Amino acid sequence: MRATTIHGPKDIRVEDVPDAAIEQVGDVVVEVELACICGSDLWAYRGVSKRQVGQRIGHEFLGSVVDVGAGVTSVGVGDRVIAPFVWSDGTCPHCVQGLPTSCPEGGFWGSGSSDGGQGEAVRVPFADGTLVRIPEGVDDGLLPALLALTDVMGTGHHAAVAAGVGPGSTVAVVGDGAVGLCGVLAAKRLGAERIIALGRHADRAAVARLFGATDQVAERGDAAVERVRELTGGLGAACVLECVGTEQSWQTGIGVVRDGGRIGYVGVPHQAPALSLGTLFGRNIGIAGGLAPVRAYLPGLMADVLAGRLDPSPVFDRTVTLDEVADGYAAMDERSALKVVVRP
Amino acid sequence: MRATTIHGPKDIRVEDVPDAAIEQVGDVVVEVELACICGSDLWAYRGVSKRQVGQRIGHEFLGSVVDVGAGVTSVGVGDRVIAPFVWSDGTCPHCVQGLPTSCPEGGFWGSGSSDGGQGEAVRVPFADGTLVRIPEGVDDGLLPALLALTDVMGTGHHAAVAAGVGPGSTVAVVGDGAVGLCGVLAAKRLGAERIIALGRHADRAAVARLFGATDQVAERGDAAVERVRELTGGLGAACVLECVGTEQSWQTGIGVVRDGGRIGYVGVPHQAPALSLGTLFGRNIGIAGGLAPVRAYLPGLMADVLAGRLDPSPVFDRTVTLDEVADGYAAMDERSALKVVVRP
Repeated sequence: MRATTIHGPKDIRVEDVPDAAIEQVGDVVVEVELACICGSDLWAYRGVSKRQVGQRIGHEFLGSVVDVGAGVTSVGVGDRVIAPFVWSDGTCPHCVQGLPTSCPEGGFWGSGSSDGGQGEAVRVPFADGTLVRIPEGVDDGLLPALLALTDVMGTGHHAAVAAGVGPGSTVAVVGDGAVGLCGVLAAKRLGAERIIALGRHADRAAVARLFGATDQVAERGDAAVERVRELTGGLGAACVLECVGTEQSWQTGIGVVRDGGRIGYVGVPHQAPALSLGTLFGRNIGIAGGLAPVRAYLPGLMADVLAGRLDPSPVFDRTVTLDEVADGYAAMDERSALKVVVRP
Repeated sequence: MRATTIHGPKDIRVEDVPDAAIEQVGDVVVEVELACICGSDLWAYRGVSKRQVGQRIGHEFLGSVVDVGAGVTSVGVGDRVIAPFVWSDGTCPHCVQGLPTSCPEGGFWGSGSSDGGQGEAVRVPFADGTLVRIPEGVDDGLLPALLALTDVMGTGHHAAVAAGVGPGSTVAVVGDGAVGLCGVLAAKRLGAERIIALGRHADRAAVARLFGATDQVAERGDAAVERVRELTGGLGAACVLECVGTEQSWQTGIGVVRDGGRIGYVGVPHQAPALSLGTLFGRNIGIAGGLAPVRAYLPGLMADVLAGRLDPSPVFDRTVTLDEVADGYAAMDERSALKVVVRP
């Protein structure tokens, strides 16, 4: 089969690889219908996160089950399924608690010798714990929205939940990538009254408005902090969604959060700051979040997508074929695309 | 009047100072009936936290109102009152929200030219926002328990609240000082089912058991982490109370917290660690807490003390007169006393 591989910085290829096949009784093979490229894939693309030469890449996909291991009970051949960005056994204490990202049997698509999402098919381990079945008869037009649930929407939702967003909340969202925009949408869905989106790209600001941002701040750094404080009576936002993961974004997040408030953080830490406890202590700032337990959120978010109450699909602004996947990476790297769908 | 001053490391004196007197219409003067020495005073005593030569010290006291500014409405001469360890105006958005420690008008007893708690009297600014009146007729035997509410009990409670302790929680408490012990008591009060107290002093362990600890871990460092994990099926505790504030205590706290759990931190950061976001991120560890908003907790905790449902007084194991206050510091410094009452 054909699949995307990475050979070094800015060296994305599509190559022949061994066909995905059942190895364990709990496996299924999914033929990929839609995949996409993640902002976190760009860290590998840019050489910041190291990869083995020729390693698979891509961790967001949905598709149809084409083969099923003898021990799988929850899905069958022909079922359409969504996968979260990590697999998990579904039975350990962490999975049962709703934190599948801490499953000791879990892993990332594309890691080691596993299949990546940006390919024709994927062997899915622990299929009963990992996959969520899409009901029959779902309109193809909803597939991009469902695809967003594999990572960015679940991750934005995690940031909002971790920040304690609820009815009436005042929220500031740091980061206008696909995750930040989904954070805006998640905050809106959870009932936030005021949603301040930070970002300087006009096209992304338009999506943020569509998703429910009530205020937008184009300034950066100290000027952004000052602007958010102006908008919040000098106090800052009780809930901050940190959707970037760099030292600057954390400085902004700490600058805009209200004393006693909470920062929900989902930006993968890169060039990661070491947090000064002294600052957090005096102002009673809490932080929560991390790697989003997307599998736990999938059923609830899918129900809202299917009911027409949730549509994160506007984060996708370009579609490529599998053969064009390198163009998709380049477009996201140079920010001419926000998030790219890959249709194998 | 006579009051405690600090002149350098291990140089605690009792000196004549100007009498406490009304300066602003919102002030009252409180004649101190009981004060105490805080673990955080020891940082100054040991020279780790810098102080001006001759600066006042002590931030925990209760007593009787002896003079009242023209603008004060909530207390009158003769009322017994408790003060939290910071004063606050009671009207700003932070105070109204329950975070008086962020009040822009707030301050610490003993800072600048203000009176400290370990003296004969204290000028209390913003008395309406700061003081809590003790109902008439309260038995003197309850005063030590009420004195503990000025700081350590409110701080232990803050750690437990910030860690998300509730009915059925599994809690680990790092630190067996007075705050850690009050953290045990607070966790018990909030309904925790399992309370693992870490500490190696037999006398403190006895107080921890009295306060509700179900398990005790005398090991330190990696061995302590291993022991807590053994006690929790390998998973760790969902709620951790960090009541020390050093690099080692934070390492222990992160080591014993369950993935997806929360660390409530109230240990004043000293030799403070910079937190690695990478560790927190992968395991979805949240941290919350900081400087305890004791004023906000005082009415609720006082009600429980008066009703006989809460008694933190066993943290006090020695009483000194004002003239003996230096002996009290020495006793706490060398750990022959846990927490010392000062009776002016």
